[in-house]
Amino acid sequence: MDFGAIVNVLGYLLLIEAGLMVPSLLVALYYNGPDKMGILISILIILIAGFIMSRISRYRDEDIQGKEGLAIVGFGWIIISVFGALPYILTDTVPSFTNAFFETVSGFTTTGATIIDNIDSLPKGILFWRSFTNWIGGMGILVFTVAIFPMLGLGGFQIYKMESPGPMADRIVPRVRDTAKILYIIYSTFTIIQIILLMLGGMSFYDAAVHTFGTAGTGGFNIKANSIGFYNSSYIHLIVGVFMILCGINFSLHYSLIKGKWKDALKNEELRLYLSIIGISIFLITFNIYNKMDYKSFGLALKDSFFQVSSMITTTAYSTVDYNSWPTFSKLILFILMFLGGCAGSTAGGIKIVRILILVKTIKREFYKILHPRAVIPIKVNNKPIASDTVIGIGAFFMLYILLLTFAIIIISLEGLDFETTISTAVATLSNIGPGFGATGPVSTYSQFSSLTKLFMTGFMLLGRLELFPLIILLNPSIWKSENFIKHR
Amino acid sequence: MDFGAIVNVLGYLLLIEAGLMVPSLLVALYYNGPDKMGILISILIILIAGFIMSRISRYRDEDIQGKEGLAIVGFGWIIISVFGALPYILTDTVPSFTNAFFETVSGFTTTGATIIDNIDSLPKGILFWRSFTNWIGGMGILVFTVAIFPMLGLGGFQIYKMESPGPMADRIVPRVRDTAKILYIIYSTFTIIQIILLMLGGMSFYDAAVHTFGTAGTGGFNIKANSIGFYNSSYIHLIVGVFMILCGINFSLHYSLIKGKWKDALKNEELRLYLSIIGISIFLITFNIYNKMDYKSFGLALKDSFFQVSSMITTTAYSTVDYNSWPTFSKLILFILMFLGGCAGSTAGGIKIVRILILVKTIKREFYKILHPRAVIPIKVNNKPIASDTVIGIGAFFMLYILLLTFAIIIISLEGLDFETTISTAVATLSNIGPGFGATGPVSTYSQFSSLTKLFMTGFMLLGRLELFPLIILLNPSIWKSENFIKHR
Repeated sequence: MDFGAIVNVLGYLLLIEAGLMVPSLLVALYYNGPDKMGILISILIILIAGFIMSRISRYRDEDIQGKEGLAIVGFGWIIISVFGALPYILTDTVPSFTNAFFETVSGFTTTGATIIDNIDSLPKGILFWRSFTNWIGGMGILVFTVAIFPMLGLGGFQIYKMESPGPMADRIVPRVRDTAKILYIIYSTFTIIQIILLMLGGMSFYDAAVHTFGTAGTGGFNIKANSIGFYNSSYIHLIVGVFMILCGINFSLHYSLIKGKWKDALKNEELRLYLSIIGISIFLITFNIYNKMDYKSFGLALKDSFFQVSSMITTTAYSTVDYNSWPTFSKLILFILMFLGGCAGSTAGGIKIVRILILVKTIKREFYKILHPRAVIPIKVNNKPIASDTVIGIGAFFMLYILLLTFAIIIISLEGLDFETTISTAVATLSNIGPGFGATGPVSTYSQFSSLTKLFMTGFMLLGRLELFPLIILLNPSIWKSENFIKHR
Repeated sequence: MDFGAIVNVLGYLLLIEAGLMVPSLLVALYYNGPDKMGILISILIILIAGFIMSRISRYRDEDIQGKEGLAIVGFGWIIISVFGALPYILTDTVPSFTNAFFETVSGFTTTGATIIDNIDSLPKGILFWRSFTNWIGGMGILVFTVAIFPMLGLGGFQIYKMESPGPMADRIVPRVRDTAKILYIIYSTFTIIQIILLMLGGMSFYDAAVHTFGTAGTGGFNIKANSIGFYNSSYIHLIVGVFMILCGINFSLHYSLIKGKWKDALKNEELRLYLSIIGISIFLITFNIYNKMDYKSFGLALKDSFFQVSSMITTTAYSTVDYNSWPTFSKLILFILMFLGGCAGSTAGGIKIVRILILVKTIKREFYKILHPRAVIPIKVNNKPIASDTVIGIGAFFMLYILLLTFAIIIISLEGLDFETTISTAVATLSNIGPGFGATGPVSTYSQFSSLTKLFMTGFMLLGRLELFPLIILLNPSIWKSENFIKHR
């Protein structure tokens, strides 16, 4: 393990984080808020720490291999969360370190769970930073680092692969740096378009920006206690709903669309399954809530159903209504969507649709094999065969997800809350959703939990965002021995 | 598909079922109960139906291949449940066909969920039959058929494989008929020993027999509204608890023990994991309930914890207390045990420990592969390598279990019960447990559900008992075409 290279890259990462904090400082200065000094000092501390770390050793591309990539991603996410918590602490808005760290991890992992009860009274610079962490974490801060650092060549791909969600990270274009740039250009374009559309709906620039960050990153941080429901406008609900769905789609498909390859994109099996699940869920929930709840019109039920389905499957968890009061049938459909998540290569959390697709195809093949035991049938996605090892890897991911969920359920159950709250909160943290059901529903916060539970939850959120494996493997001592190291994985 | 051979074997199956109903008739006659005529007529009807079916065509061993084996197991379980419901209907104890069918499926699949609210008032012959279905279903009626039919040779193994729980059904001895005999001899010996031990604890022969059937089959049908808690005797709780654990162990290990191969049995990895999970769960629950509940002594908490853990992991679901009122932590540990189930080749339901073991080993290997991408490492259980295809098959089973669970949750959620009841009831039917939590807890019954939901539940119970694949594949039209048929799978 080349510690020098790791510290070096982590230093650059902090410099980038300091840079990404500047817009929040500008917001604080513009509104002349009480938070301007706190944010300024945070930026300075991060700059100094980053500067020192980036000077400790000289980085060379060939030093970054599989193991170093893992360590950079794992430690990188922890270190940006520790330093990203500084503005909360130094502005005294969230004085406790555990709470500030929870809020930052929740932001970067695009979970959107909050420990802040009095959200309306917080200064604007801090709330801007809070929502901006959703935006940064959505596409990934290391993908951003790869995009702007010319030196990260081969090693950049290791890092990109680890941070990018889904079982088979692919480069859109041959060079990983160009891939990362393209991803951020599309992401930024979506962001700008959504801000404009929300402003056309009557939002101020500040409100539009903050909610767009939460949407694009599928994080769902709010600046109002009753979320998007605060804006009594179907147009705004529709815009946010559509953009959540868009950001839950693999960004390489958006690139195909931009390149005019409509057919490729529309034939994509993951996209089709994703949209089918959304369609069926909206249909079922609309009829259920229209029949069982007090809705004035079918259209309003459809709108709320569309918004909530889009919000849950993309793991954003914005809300326009308190879905906690919906019938069990609708709640359980939302609960199932919480597991699924969006497409691979999107900003959404959860298990990812492509994994479900491959596992369902594996089940189909098992049925076929009962009748044709000697047949050799490859599993294909988009007409490309999937290697047997990849299938086993996805099965292992699924099982590990369930195991970690079990662990999370046991930890959270020690809080003594009810069955529904405990299970849904475990899923809500591990799948990076945010609010759950029951006592962590859309109108509640996570401030009720003990510090120890909140620390565990930051672990679940990081595990979920980095897709389980990279963080756990760092706990294995053998990774730290150089003899176990094999080049060019 | 050779329909003649299938009808023929199903006919023999009914003859066996009629024979297995005779003890219940004797009980009814002994107590001179109002149920004796109903049971007698049931036996006659089943005898006639079985006789006709067994004469329709001539069975030859080579006619039973993979597809016929599937059809015999799938239809066999449905047909014995339909005819097994006759005593309930003809004695007027459970007049509705749906309810009687539910109760019979629940019995044969060793689920132990009941729709009978006034259990104390039912005649003894009927209650004997009800509990005896637990016993028959535990080891499997087709395994029994294989044991006593000299003609089922090669075809017998197809059937045995399909009915025997676990991913890799093995013959204990070379001939499948001898294997089936050995299994039933061990099973009967356990049954006799437990009956004697319970009688030594003060139970009548009738009570001892009925509860032993529920224990040995890990079914958990009761004759008292408050289950084993009715018997205020730690000795009885202990005996039932220990025998549940014994019947959750692979019966081929019991055979090894009898043959004096202690080391083989004790080194078995599935057994070790099973006992470790039981030990850890008892430990955690004992401390939790002793601290949070009103227990007079640590010993009493330990006893209740031991009983309930043993009852839940083996999917028996007998109870000595209302665990519904336990703290969420303890309830959720029981909930997790409901998924696991016992060992392969035992009478328990659930996913089975060996599958969990192989999946956990697969996860471990994935971690190893991240560091050693080119290494080829086979997954081994008890020092025997597991084929890649078997690993994929187990992953597919796990995923299919979760998918069917999702489907079950959605169907049951239409009943409008709460989150906890809905989810736990879905697991309780699919894992063949019986009572769940909330409104289907140990002091409640399934009579509250609509007929349609109850019919769906019979499907979930059968799917769970036959381990998902055999029943679903019968719905696939291609199995009925002869050209898709490959010999000697």
